[in-house]
Amino acid sequence: MGARCERSVQLALKAFIEGSAELIAEVKSLDRHIDRDEMESDELALRILALRQPVAHDLRLLATALKLVTDLERIGDIGVNISERVLELNQEPPLKPYVDLPVMAEETQRMLHDALDAFVAGDAEAAHRVIERDVTIDAYYSQIFRELLTYMMEDVRNIYRATRLQSIAKYLERVGDHATNLAEMVVFMVKGQDIRHAGKLSTTEK
Amino acid sequence: MGARCERSVQLALKAFIEGSAELIAEVKSLDRHIDRDEMESDELALRILALRQPVAHDLRLLATALKLVTDLERIGDIGVNISERVLELNQEPPLKPYVDLPVMAEETQRMLHDALDAFVAGDAEAAHRVIERDVTIDAYYSQIFRELLTYMMEDVRNIYRATRLQSIAKYLERVGDHATNLAEMVVFMVKGQDIRHAGKLSTTEK
Repeated sequence: MGARCERSVQLALKAFIEGSAELIAEVKSLDRHIDRDEMESDELALRILALRQPVAHDLRLLATALKLVTDLERIGDIGVNISERVLELNQEPPLKPYVDLPVMAEETQRMLHDALDAFVAGDAEAAHRVIERDVTIDAYYSQIFRELLTYMMEDVRNIYRATRLQSIAKYLERVGDHATNLAEMVVFMVKGQDIRHAGKLSTTEK
Repeated sequence: MGARCERSVQLALKAFIEGSAELIAEVKSLDRHIDRDEMESDELALRILALRQPVAHDLRLLATALKLVTDLERIGDIGVNISERVLELNQEPPLKPYVDLPVMAEETQRMLHDALDAFVAGDAEAAHRVIERDVTIDAYYSQIFRELLTYMMEDVRNIYRATRLQSIAKYLERVGDHATNLAEMVVFMVKGQDIRHAGKLSTTEK
């Protein structure tokens, strides 16, 4: 399921960068696979919980599986969403030579890949390194959004395309968030330690 | 946790409609509560799974709880996101008299409220009715987006505010998605029947 999610985002972005529409059918087919994966994974996790009554690490693994498929399934949806924006963009000439967006796309894909690797390897250290990279993705989004605003203000004919590009950047930012969630769950699975909201809660009142 | 999510979205939208900034501190405080609720709920669900080894309906309830808190936690984040956009909007005069966005906001809040009610009551029929309403929310988003595009094209000075309003509409659309997820989980919890992706998978190849 994780491999299909990676492939989905990869193909959607390939369609964007190469201006090709053929890959989009494949993204949609992957999404249907990912949807089925989600349902099958949940069914299996529940069956194991009912029949084997696992504890400690095994229980955490199953709880993680139940949660993690939600993030993966949304990544599959995001692949489709990006494809739809790419189709709309392909109907017009490119707004500009894209520089930041491909770099953001690369970085986001790497983050997702490393989060899934950390899960498979049960590597909490690697998961921590993934989490640290989310600020970079967020910074890319802000930068791209600001740049797109200037294009919109320059010429009204840019507005529609700029909003499509902004959506793609926003979807990438959300893939980064999902990768972060995956990585946080890996830490929980391996160490039994819930690090979600750690930054936010420690800096605020109890 | 559900009540806090409702309140968070409600306050963020009140801040938007009344142009008031005071409510935003409360939204942020609610978000921190919701984050803690998520962690506590997960801890409790795992403890019950480990100690009681539940089966059938009880097991489905716990699996639902593990999944559902993820959607609720994101709704808490969305409350904060909406507040941030409201703060940015408040720095300038309103773009136009808002008509559709308050209606969309009302409808989204009702959907969330009804999804949570269906969970508490274990009412699968009510959950089905919630799911059907998501198309309306999506239609509102498309309509608002199109209208905002025309404002952007009319005057460059509208662009920034229009992008803030678009974000708010998008966040509402996502609250609708989360409410739909909650409702689908209620059906699963009550009937043991996984209806996710039902429409999408039945209309496509096996």
